[in-house]
This record gives sequence, C-alpha cells and structure tokens, in this order.
Amino acid sequence: MPTHLLPPSPPPLRTWQTLLDLALAEDIGPGDITTQIVIGPESKGRARIEARQDLVICGLFVAEEVFRQVDAHLQINPVHREGERVAAGEALGFVEGSMRSILAAERTALNFLGRLSGISTLTSQFRDAVSETSCQIVDTRKTLPGWRVLDKFAVLAGGGINHRFALFDGILLKDNHVAAAGGVREAMNRARTRAPAGLRIQIEVESLQEAEDACAAGADFLLLDNCTPEAVARIVEQLGPDILLEASGGISLENVRAFAEAGVHRISIGALTHSAAAVDVALEVEDGPDRRP
Amino acid sequence: MPTHLLPPSPPPLRTWQTLLDLALAEDIGPGDITTQIVIGPESKGRARIEARQDLVICGLFVAEEVFRQVDAHLQINPVHREGERVAAGEALGFVEGSMRSILAAERTALNFLGRLSGISTLTSQFRDAVSETSCQIVDTRKTLPGWRVLDKFAVLAGGGINHRFALFDGILLKDNHVAAAGGVREAMNRARTRAPAGLRIQIEVESLQEAEDACAAGADFLLLDNCTPEAVARIVEQLGPDILLEASGGISLENVRAFAEAGVHRISIGALTHSAAAVDVALEVEDGPDRRP
Amino acid sequence: MPTHLLPPSPPPLRTWQTLLDLALAEDIGPGDITTQIVIGPESKGRARIEARQDLVICGLFVAEEVFRQVDAHLQINPVHREGERVAAGEALGFVEGSMRSILAAERTALNFLGRLSGISTLTSQFRDAVSETSCQIVDTRKTLPGWRVLDKFAVLAGGGINHRFALFDGILLKDNHVAAAGGVREAMNRARTRAPAGLRIQIEVESLQEAEDACAAGADFLLLDNCTPEAVARIVEQLGPDILLEASGGISLENVRAFAEAGVHRISIGALTHSAAAVDVALEVEDGPDRRP
Amino acid sequence: MPTHLLPPSPPPLRTWQTLLDLALAEDIGPGDITTQIVIGPESKGRARIEARQDLVICGLFVAEEVFRQVDAHLQINPVHREGERVAAGEALGFVEGSMRSILAAERTALNFLGRLSGISTLTSQFRDAVSETSCQIVDTRKTLPGWRVLDKFAVLAGGGINHRFALFDGILLKDNHVAAAGGVREAMNRARTRAPAGLRIQIEVESLQEAEDACAAGADFLLLDNCTPEAVARIVEQLGPDILLEASGGISLENVRAFAEAGVHRISIGALTHSAAAVDVALEVEDGPDRRP
Amino acid sequence: MPTHLLPPSPPPLRTWQTLLDLALAEDIGPGDITTQIVIGPESKGRARIEARQDLVICGLFVAEEVFRQVDAHLQINPVHREGERVAAGEALGFVEGSMRSILAAERTALNFLGRLSGISTLTSQFRDAVSETSCQIVDTRKTLPGWRVLDKFAVLAGGGINHRFALFDGILLKDNHVAAAGGVREAMNRARTRAPAGLRIQIEVESLQEAEDACAAGADFLLLDNCTPEAVARIVEQLGPDILLEASGGISLENVRAFAEAGVHRISIGALTHSAAAVDVALEVEDGPDRRP
Amino acid sequence: MPTHLLPPSPPPLRTWQTLLDLALAEDIGPGDITTQIVIGPESKGRARIEARQDLVICGLFVAEEVFRQVDAHLQINPVHREGERVAAGEALGFVEGSMRSILAAERTALNFLGRLSGISTLTSQFRDAVSETSCQIVDTRKTLPGWRVLDKFAVLAGGGINHRFALFDGILLKDNHVAAAGGVREAMNRARTRAPAGLRIQIEVESLQEAEDACAAGADFLLLDNCTPEAVARIVEQLGPDILLEASGGISLENVRAFAEAGVHRISIGALTHSAAAVDVALEVEDGPDRRP
Repeated sequence: MPTHLLPPSPPPLRTWQTLLDLALAEDIGPGDITTQIVIGPESKGRARIEARQDLVICGLFVAEEVFRQVDAHLQINPVHREGERVAAGEALGFVEGSMRSILAAERTALNFLGRLSGISTLTSQFRDAVSETSCQIVDTRKTLPGWRVLDKFAVLAGGGINHRFALFDGILLKDNHVAAAGGVREAMNRARTRAPAGLRIQIEVESLQEAEDACAAGADFLLLDNCTPEAVARIVEQLGPDILLEASGGISLENVRAFAEAGVHRISIGALTHSAAAVDVALEVEDGPDRRP
Repeated sequence: MPTHLLPPSPPPLRTWQTLLDLALAEDIGPGDITTQIVIGPESKGRARIEARQDLVICGLFVAEEVFRQVDAHLQINPVHREGERVAAGEALGFVEGSMRSILAAERTALNFLGRLSGISTLTSQFRDAVSETSCQIVDTRKTLPGWRVLDKFAVLAGGGINHRFALFDGILLKDNHVAAAGGVREAMNRARTRAPAGLRIQIEVESLQEAEDACAAGADFLLLDNCTPEAVARIVEQLGPDILLEASGGISLENVRAFAEAGVHRISIGALTHSAAAVDVALEVEDGPDRRP
Repeated sequence: MPTHLLPPSPPPLRTWQTLLDLALAEDIGPGDITTQIVIGPESKGRARIEARQDLVICGLFVAEEVFRQVDAHLQINPVHREGERVAAGEALGFVEGSMRSILAAERTALNFLGRLSGISTLTSQFRDAVSETSCQIVDTRKTLPGWRVLDKFAVLAGGGINHRFALFDGILLKDNHVAAAGGVREAMNRARTRAPAGLRIQIEVESLQEAEDACAAGADFLLLDNCTPEAVARIVEQLGPDILLEASGGISLENVRAFAEAGVHRISIGALTHSAAAVDVALEVEDGPDRRP
Repeated sequence: MPTHLLPPSPPPLRTWQTLLDLALAEDIGPGDITTQIVIGPESKGRARIEARQDLVICGLFVAEEVFRQVDAHLQINPVHREGERVAAGEALGFVEGSMRSILAAERTALNFLGRLSGISTLTSQFRDAVSETSCQIVDTRKTLPGWRVLDKFAVLAGGGINHRFALFDGILLKDNHVAAAGGVREAMNRARTRAPAGLRIQIEVESLQEAEDACAAGADFLLLDNCTPEAVARIVEQLGPDILLEASGGISLENVRAFAEAGVHRISIGALTHSAAAVDVALEVEDGPDRRP
Repeated sequence: MPTHLLPPSPPPLRTWQTLLDLALAEDIGPGDITTQIVIGPESKGRARIEARQDLVICGLFVAEEVFRQVDAHLQINPVHREGERVAAGEALGFVEGSMRSILAAERTALNFLGRLSGISTLTSQFRDAVSETSCQIVDTRKTLPGWRVLDKFAVLAGGGINHRFALFDGILLKDNHVAAAGGVREAMNRARTRAPAGLRIQIEVESLQEAEDACAAGADFLLLDNCTPEAVARIVEQLGPDILLEASGGISLENVRAFAEAGVHRISIGALTHSAAAVDVALEVEDGPDRRP
Repeated sequence: MPTHLLPPSPPPLRTWQTLLDLALAEDIGPGDITTQIVIGPESKGRARIEARQDLVICGLFVAEEVFRQVDAHLQINPVHREGERVAAGEALGFVEGSMRSILAAERTALNFLGRLSGISTLTSQFRDAVSETSCQIVDTRKTLPGWRVLDKFAVLAGGGINHRFALFDGILLKDNHVAAAGGVREAMNRARTRAPAGLRIQIEVESLQEAEDACAAGADFLLLDNCTPEAVARIVEQLGPDILLEASGGISLENVRAFAEAGVHRISIGALTHSAAAVDVALEVEDGPDRRP
C-alpha cells in the first residue's frame, strides 16, 4: 500500500460475514467426508501458505478468519501485511492445529486470497504504469456481486483509490440520466438544487462539446468516457485545472500511461475487479501427523 | 448447452437469494441518489440488454430476478436460453417499466451476467478445443466464495460437467490425506471401509508409479495432477480402460487437446471459475421518458 | 412534501424488511391469543385508520406492508400520499378482510405510523418556522438504531433534507478528529489528499476564529456547532457567500428562525428524529362481523 | 430500580442482536471514511461517556456491546448500574482503545443510551408522581417496532412494571373483540372456556355500567380506558377490592397521581415508550492520541 | 379438532419459515441430481398424497407451502382440514405440475406431514381415552427444538390444549425455584408480588402436604407431578373445586383415564411431542410423464 | 461408536446454529419470567445431567453449546463421549454457574439430548440385533426437517452408517424416476451418461426380475424395497457378490437379523430418525443457592 496514505483498516467483519457464511456453507457444509474417513480427529500439523507467483498480497485477514471460523483452536500467523509485494516462493503465513480443520478450510481460504490478491496485484500494475504522474487509479461499481467491500479494499491494498461505493453515496449523471432529465442543463440544475450538500455532482461526457456544455451548466467534475488520450488531452487543455477530470472506458495496461500523461486526475478501470485473474497461492503441509516422532 | 444432455434447471433461487440480497444491499442500499434527484417517479422507459462481444450466455435467470426484486412491476423478456451462443450486437433481453428502477438495477444485473457468461464462454472454448473427443471438461472447487451454485451452473451452461460440488459430496484423496494416513495403501483401505456406499473414491497421483500403486491398492478413479500429456498417455496405456482418469494442473486452451487425445476421460480446470474474465454486456435505454410523445 | 422537489421513492422494502420482521415477531409471534379465542376464523370486517390530531402523514407505505405481511388477503387502501397534511379526524386509509388479521396487525401498523408521522410533523413545523427563507432543515445521525432509512425518509416527507446517511458516505471533521490529526491545518490536509473525489469535506467549528482557520486551510463547508444566532451572523458576514454553512446545536422551534435569518444555508436538528413524540393515530372497525346482516 | 424487586437480568443479547446488527450496518457499514482518512490505525485514546442532564440510566449493557462488537479490543468500564439515578455531569462509563474504533462506535452507542435512558427517566418521573401509593406504573404495546425487549426493560429500569409482552402472552378483550363476539357476556364466555389456564382475562370497559356488566359475566381484571379520575374512583368504590383494575388513556405527569389516589392498581401509559424524548448523553475524548507523550 | 372450540388459525408462516428454509436447504440444496439427470425439465405429472394408516391429519398447510416454495407453479389441492380423522388409503391432497419439482419436494413435505400428524394422532388417542370427562389433554415444553409453534398447533389439531408456550409467557414454580427462594411460602410471596398481573402462578407439588402448603401460601393453580391417580384423587377431594389442578408425570394411554376420573382439570403429557412416532403417509404419482398420450 | 471407525467430528456449529437460534428464541425468548421473579441474579449453583434409563448418549456437544449460548459464564463438564453406552442413573455431565441461566437453559438442552440420544440408542439396538454379521445399519432421508445434520450424526454415534445426505449428493432411481424415463434400461442409460463421475447409481427394485433387469442394464448398486428376507436371500444368491445390495421397507428390531443373514450389505431404516422416542434425561440441581453455607 502506498506509504503516503494512512493504511485503511480492513472492512469490518460484519460487512463480509455473510459472504464468509456462504463460502463455508457451500464448501464444507455438514463436513469434509474425505478427512473424516482417512484422518483421525487427534491428528495435528502445520501448514505454510505460499505465493506461487510474484504478487501484491491482499486478503490475509479473510484467510485468517476462515481458519478461525472453521476451528477456533487453529493458530494462524500471517507474515505479510495487506498490500505488500511478495515474491514467488515466499511464505504468506502459517497455520497450525488439527489436520482435519486445516484441510477442510484450505480451499476456501485460498479462494479468497487468490481473488483478492489478483485484484491488488492488477491494481498495482496499473499504478506502476502511471508512476511519477499524479494520476490516480480508481475502481468502479463493476465488482463481483456480494464482494463490494472486499473488492474495494483490494483496490486500496494495490495502491488504487475508491470511487463511490455504491448508488447511495455518490452522484454520477450518465447519458440516460441526462436524457431522462431533458438535457445537460436541466439535469445539472436538478442535481445542484437537490443534491445533499456533502456530495459533488459528476457528469459523464464523451466529447469536448459535451464537456463544455456541462461546465457551462455548472459542472466541475467530469467523467470522460470512451475518449482517446488525444481527445482527453484537448479537453484538459480547454477546460483548465479547476475542473476535476476522470477518464474511463477502453483503458489497458498498454494505454493507461497515455491517459495519465494527457492530464486527467483519475482513471477508472472496471477490469480491476470484473476481470482480475486469481493469483496462484497454495497451502503446503510442512509438518504432518505421520512425520512427527 | 450440449444437446445430448437434458438441460439442467437453474439452481433454486433459495440457494442464491442471499448472494442476491448482498448484491442489492451493497449497490442500491437505501436508494439510488442520482435517479431520485434527476428522474421523476412516474418516468417510464424500455431498455435492451445486449452482448458487446460473441459469448455463450449464462445468468439471464439471475438478471431477471434482479430486476424483479428491485421492482416487481418491471416487465422482463429474455430472448435467449441459458447456454446459447450469442453474437456481438445481439439483444439478450428487454426490460420495461419505471426508469428509476431500471437504472438502479442495471449495474447489479450486468455484473451477474458478465461474470456468469464469462465462465460459460470460457468453458465453451475449452469444449470446442476438445471437440470430437469423448473427453469432458470439468470444473473444480476453485469457484468464487459465495458463488458455488451459480459458477457451477455456468460451467454446465458452457457445456462442461461438474466435479463434486463440495467437500461433503465427494471423496478425493490428495497428497496430504495420503501422507496423513501413512501411505497410499492405508489411505485406500480406510476410505474403502468407511466411505458411504454411494460415493466413488478418487485419488490424486503424480506419476505412473503412484498410479500403479493406487490401482494395486484398489483404486479405480485417479486424478492425474501436473502430468504432461505424454506422461498421461503412458498412464492411460498402462492402466487400461477400466480405470477412470482425470487430468488437472497446467491446462490451457493451447494444450487441452493434447490431454484429451492422450486418453483421459475428464480434464478439470480451475481457471474456468477462478480466472474467467467478465464478458462485455450492456444495457441501452431504447425508449426513454423524454423521447415519448 | 415540498412541491419544488421530485418526490423521493420510499426506501426499498429490502432495507427495512428486517425491522418489519422484528416488529411482527415481537408483537404477534406465534399468534394473537385473544382473537383466536373470541373471534372466528371466517369473521370479516372493514377498518378505518384515522388521524386523531393534525399531522403530516408518513409511513402509510409501511402500514400497508404490515397488513399485507400479516395476511396477504387483506385489502388496503391508503387515501393520502406520503408528506401530505391531514387534519384531525380525517381518514388515512382503510383495510378490509379477516377480523383476526386486522386486529392482530393493528398495533404494529399504528406504531410505525405514529412514529414516522411524528417525525414528519415535527420536521414540517421547523420548515414552517423558516418559511420564505432559503434555509434548509436537515436531519442528523441521531436516528433510532435500526430506523435510519425510515427516519430519514420521514424527514424528507416533512419537507426536510437529509444530511449524510452514515459514516460511510460523508466526511465531517469534528473536534476529536481535528485533535487526533494535530490541528485544523493538518486535518484538512489529510482529508483533501485522501478523500474520495465525490465527497466534500465538512469541518466543525465553534467560533469565528476556528471558522477562519478552517477556511484558511482550504475548507469550504463548515458546521457551526453551538453558536448563537448572533455569532452565526458574524461568521456569515465575515466568510462571504462561497462558504457553505450549516448550524447545529441548541436549535428549537422558538429560535430556528433567528438562525435561518442569520444566513446559514442549512440547520441540522437531532431532535427531529431522536425526540419526536408519536402522533395520535387510531384504527376503528367500521363494519364488524356482528353488524353485518 | 426499586429495591423491593429482584433486579431483572437485561434481556438476552440474542433478542436484540438483530437490532444491533441493523444499527451497526446502517451507521458504520463498510467503514467510517472520516476516521480512516485523518486518524492513523495505531492511534489510541480514552473516552468518557457522560450525562448532560439528570437521568435514570438505562442501556449501558447495550452501549458496552456496541463498542465490543465494533472492536473486540476496546476496554469498556461502566460506572453505573441499570436503573440508577445519575446527575448531570457525572460519568456513565469509560471506553479505551483504538481511536478509530471509539469514534466509529460513538454515535450508535449514544443513540441507544439516549433513547433507553429517556424511557427509564420518564418512567421514574411517573413513579415519583405516585410515590407512597401502591399503584404501579405499567407500559403498553406502544413500543417502537423492533425495540420491544429493550423498551420494556427500560421501563423496568425506571421502576415501572411490564404489561403483557405481546399478543401471544396475554388476553385483553377490547371493544372490537367484544363487538365481534356479540357482547360482553359472550366474549367472556368464549374467553373463559378457551383461554390457556395460566392467563387471566382482562377486559376493557369505559364506564361503570360496562364494568358491572363485565363483572357480572365473570371478569376479575378490568382495563378502565379513557375514564376521569372521578369515574375511576366511583368504579373502584362500586366493585370492591377483589377486582383488579388498570387505568389507561389520557394519563399525564399532571394527572397521574389523581388516578393513583382513585384506587386503581395499575396505570398504563403508552407515552413511556412511544413519546419519550432522548436524554442528552455525550462522549468526550479525555486522553487523545496527540496528547500522549 | 373438537367442535366446541373456534378452530385456531395455523401459526403464521413467519414463525416457521426459518425451519422450512432449513428443511429445503438440507434436503434439496443446490438441486436434486437424480431428477436432473433422468427427467426432462418439461415433464409434467400429478401426484396423490395419501394416508397409509388411520390418522388425524395435521400439517397439510406446511406441505402445501413446501411444494409452493419449491416451485411456485405447482398446483396443490388439499382435501382435508387440519384435525380431521382420515382412514388408511384416503387421499390427503393432490399436487400437479413439473415432475422434477414434485419429486424434489416430496420427501420434505412428507417428513413434515408425518411428524405433525403423528402428534395430532397421538393427542387424539389421549383425548379419546378421557372422553366424556371434562379433563383436558395438555402439551408441555418438551417439543422438538425448532418446532415449538408447529408441535403446539398439532396438539390443538388433535384436540388438546396448549400449556404455556415458553418460559416467557407463563409462571411455573418447580422444585428448583422453590428451593432457590427458600421454601414454598417465600417463593409464592415473591411471585405474587412480582408477577405480571395477567399471569397466574402455577406451582409444582408432589404430595398432599406440599399441596396444602402451597394453598396456604396463596396458590390456586397446582401441578401435581408424579402422583398416582389415588394420590391425585385425595388431593382433589381435600382441596375442593376452587384450586385448578394439573397432573403430569408417568401418564400413558393406559392410565390417563384414571387420572381424569380422579378429578384433575388438565393432564399434561410430554410424550405427545417428544416421542410421537411419525404416521405413514406417501406420495403416489398418478399421472406420470410417460403415461400421457 | 464402533471402534473400527475413526470417530467423526460432530457437525460444525455453523450447520446447526440456526436450529439452535430457533430453539433458544422459542423457549426463552425475551427471558424466563419465573426465574426473574423468584431467583436473584447473584444466585449460583451446580447441576447434574443424568440418564434416567440405559442409553447410548448423543448430543452432549449440543447441550454444552446451549448452556454456553445462554450464558457464556457457565462451566460445563461432560463426562461421556458421543456414542458411549450409559446406564440409568449415571451422570452425563455437570453445569455450574448462575441459577437463572442454568434453569433457563435446562429444557432446551434436555430436549436436544433426549431426541439425539433417542436416535443413537435405537440405532445401537438395530446394530446389536445384527451383531457379528457384516451388515451395516443405514439411515434415510426421513429425518426431522431442520435436523438432518444432527440426526445423521446421532446415527453415526449409535454405530450406524449414513446414506446419502440429501438429494444433491447421491443418485437413487426410484420407481417414479424409472417410469418417467420410460423403463429401467433408459433410466440407467441416462444416469450413467450424465452422472457426476464420483457418484455411484443406486436403483430401487422390488423383485428378482426387476433386480436382474437392472443388472442387465448395468446397475451394480440396488435398493431392495419391501422384499421379504426370503426374497432378499434369493436375489443375493442369484446376483452374486459383486452387486452392492441394500434392503429397506418394513424392517423392525424383530426381523432385522433375518435380513442381515439373507446377505444384504446394508439395511436402511427410516424409523431410526422419524420415530425414535426421546430417552429420559434430567437435570438435578445438586448444590443450589440456599444450600450453600
């Protein structure tokens, strides 16, 4: 996590306990048949969770909770903090206790770690691609249903910044809203009169003309959707530094720097959360029951 | 969905209602501020959900439920069935009613559709890659926590086959179980004596030697993990047709056909569910409030 | 509800269903003993819900849902819209069907109506007290635990405006935050660098000096806490029209107009929700079972 | 709490955990943005919860649980017991630990304390008004939906007595029940034959005539609704000491003593729970992060 | 159900929906594999639910809800009312629609019907055994955890009467309470002073001496536990008709009439709910998919 | 529990917490009135849970959790392990702490213990009846709704074996499935092609002819329903040792040995769970509050 920010606290367990309940119910349910029939209830061991590729770690706090909720007697020791870079082969943490419990919890813990670190790793790649610019990498509402709080935390862990959390905590006038209101001027008027005082009004535009119309109607926070870096640069130049600008649409690791250099303040990328591949993490039993003296 | 199978019913709403609750709570919560301040409560419209890329559709039954639960008065008409191939630009369905409701539900509906169709589309690509072999494409437990029933249905919709659903409905002896039991022979003995009669016992092996040991211990269902296609072929040849064989580990669209041609009965692929990118689907308002006479 | 605003949709049932579940469970639970032992299951009737005092109505949408969830066969007809003024003695709505169901649901429905209309009525009294000023009446987070979405809607119904919904959708630097950060300047610096782009930063001040310090540190949105109307007037004059000002603390129906005339943009009042007395509403059986031919 | 009663245990957490879940979800949700951006995760402090007015305290057990569930590492020390009288300025308790956690939990804890102490304080005022009579102050079912167990406990803490908890644990024949049954005699007959043996049958009457009719039909427990103290006195005199009498309707702090002196055994007052104003309680940081060496 | 009582409404769905959720989740979960692989989704049929033994039916309202919640399109037609006697071989109801749905729901519906009718049938046998006495058959709190509302309704359906529902709606002083209070006199004193006015106080005694002590202390409602019919008769004779008496402990179909004739008003029997064997009910497909033209 | 099996871990609390929630809510709810009015909050004591009949114990892990969730300060010490035989009069465990808490939790704890030990005791009687045969006693899906995981564990504790857990983890072709598919051959064909590889296919037959048809169609796992022991013996003889055979229907303690000796591998018995009578267990206060020095 970038050092110039106070590290955020992970989201309260309350906000993802239901997802965790679903996860444990669906994978373990009434019990792990395999361990019950081949491993004795007294069998103890120690396992190492490790990175199988370079990654930015996120989700150890979830993995810990998975093990704890499967078996309150397991000892869990993470060896990295959320947002740290970890090299392939390094340990992420250790878990010790009942072998039945460790093996039953393994897949759920890894599934969480794999996805969340996938997001933080991809976010950090975008961050690296715009390094030394002041442009921020921002997420979207294209998170996986049920995962909003975790997905958004993983973006923070990867060095990104969160956009509005949801429909209830931000205002973004998109083309459909503008059309429904009868044009940019009327939409901005309604929004300015009626918006809660604590929220800025962001409006989506797709061209310099629309951007100028929006500013004329009082907008000071634009979403430039599906513009080329060149078009973005022209808008930046034309509107001057007082208008807050965010680019979105068609952004990739290849072209993100061009957008940043075009001068926008933020670049929002749905793929951070809707298409991040899981990273490869694994659990290795180090000290199993039958290897003990 | 392949025509030689009876089409499965989508999973009961009961099994994914909690995920849907989470999704609606996290994205809409107490309400969509933007639509409340710029769109009147009486405004009606019609929207088209469309594919922006070629895809195998999955999740329309979820999207329908999203719209219905946001507003029971919305009319929803899907125009494709789960598992059908759809070309870029085609409509997937239509939704009609209150503009406030349609726009509030849009993102959640699309987020479900994008992920589930991402899985079914990727699965169908693997299926196509092994076409005209008798080899089946199988999923794993590397689904997203909370999404097991939906992810597994998306695999079926893409023409794949489900592996065990979870730890409670199948037996798979992995290296850690074998080690804990004190070797292949003892693990197989315990499992055969104690397993519920309705379940086969699958055992993971990584070499011909291990495969032969497992068969000698009575195994008739092996998971060949991290073997090359050549190694797989040798094992197939050696063990003969009565042993059910599944390959896993390191499988990609490039090499999957080589595994199929090596003669395994099933190939299981974690990436189907842990790393499928979302497909691009969008909602277009066709007939908005201000365009009506 | 003031006519210059688009009427808000009531909060989605999803967001208050749990409160409704609690309410029905705690009052009806396994059943209403009294009706079961003295009224037959076939007994039908019609009841009128009426105002016993002048009020601004809020909560009919909840009362309807109470009756519907107690008995899906009840017919419910509200005769007023949320936010309308109703005189003592007027009907608010009618409910018809099984007498057992009507009487079992009565108290829960009235308890909701009484509190929500209590809030909307009190809010409208504050609104009336500042009529013909541009000052807005605003709620706070001093709502009843579990009732946030309903309490806040009742404020809207009474002609008020909502402040931030909760801690997650707005930024307000209070004295403790400023102290923890090491002073106004540092607190504002941290907040400006780190706040999500869509949120303004509001800072609490208690004197002209603090207000000027805050503005010097870049603030443009102040909460003037526990100031007299005179102190407020001086701050308004000194800071000029570009700084958004909200007054709070010690506001009553007697002094609220003085604050409004002092020139603040908003006045926030905890008592709207933490101390509104319930209004008097009652249910009268008009056409009971034994009065039918 | 009056010393002649065994102090009741606070209601089991199980019975108000859902309300607490709602409260924490609605106010904190995914997190407190303000503290996350201006206060570091390592910052510690100590806060004092204090009374800002004279009050009878109720709800410390809830406030403790709020802090504990927000952060299990917080240290909480209440310095009063439920039902004690506390003077303005006195401390109610202390909480120590992470500043982020204390400030995030503050409002929810105070909202519970303010309402519950509001009820217990108002109840104690009614108790004081009937002091040295044997008349008991009793609550009603006019509690806030979702708050029944807490509201009723607050009445006990204030020295009142609980009426039936709900529709399922008591029998009260009101006018509508009597009408539906076809008169007082038939209603009493049905009730006596069919009531569970453990429950008395209470019947509502509004005049001496109705009271006498009810007694003639076998009633021994009457609710005298909307009678004047004089009418009540006549009924008491007429019916003698064996009939249990409860007065309700139009009772205020001004006239409650007149009812008590008229000789009823209990006086039930809806306002105890439907219209109690919150008392003023506050949290003060005593030893904040930046004042530590 | 005995005709001299108003038929009770079945308990609200709200109070047993969670049990139903558990039931459907545990038996159907993500889906019925067998029907999905051998029966097509379009296959329709009609099934008859029938009694395989003489019984008093209870639980059709639950069975209906099971079918409805598994598939809202199923048509369900019960042909008996709760509490009716049904002969072996008679139909209880019919269900028509998707074969997949009918077969998936079958077992859960029958499991509910079998148990609830088991209770009502057993209760009716006890009722028959005391016919033409005025003694009532009463249940206890020895219901199956999670089933209280359903078990108690089944007792009503079988012609029994409910005892207190739970610990919160009745007062019963058992030996442990009396000991803890320091004797019968003190226990009765505490209880009379402190009990809610609407509740009678029942006290458990095991001998005539204890019964007389209890009455001397003011008791008018006794539980005679583990007494012989002869001992009961002596107590009845000694105490006279004004003391309400309930017998419990060691009651069977063989001896219940002796207790009734000894003159107690009620006999409570734990076995009604803790040891009722399920009755035999079955579902027969009448008109299956392959028998249609 | 038979020593030749690894003892299974009790099912995870997660899977029966909801049932426990229901149980505590329905019996204790807002509180135990009796203990609150006659026993002081400081009163402590110790109670012994004891067997009142010979039994095989099951459910101590549930009873412990009941006490713990009612009052986290109670000390609970079980003195037997799940599945052990206990003689009438022996202690099962002890609980120590607040008398209010112990008495409030007593009935719920005993209700769980009584039923679960009822199942394990009945199962052990069937086991004893087939002792020294290799035949296994197997449960069915005729468990009590909501109790599947607990009921099935009680069968294990009694020395039985679990059948499939539910519809989602096993395949059993019954007469209705066969009819719907158009005959044994087609049903087996569909099932073999489409079944998940890890599941065997079991098919129900009622005669030798049907058994032979099923084998001819490829079946190797039969359910012999409603056959006499003689018919079973003929089928065993005819089909030889490679076909796995299970008998069901009409099995009692009297005839179960005849079935076992007829040579089936498993005997499944619905009555184990649908009709097990509760065993008699009780809680005795040993060291109550007023007996302490």
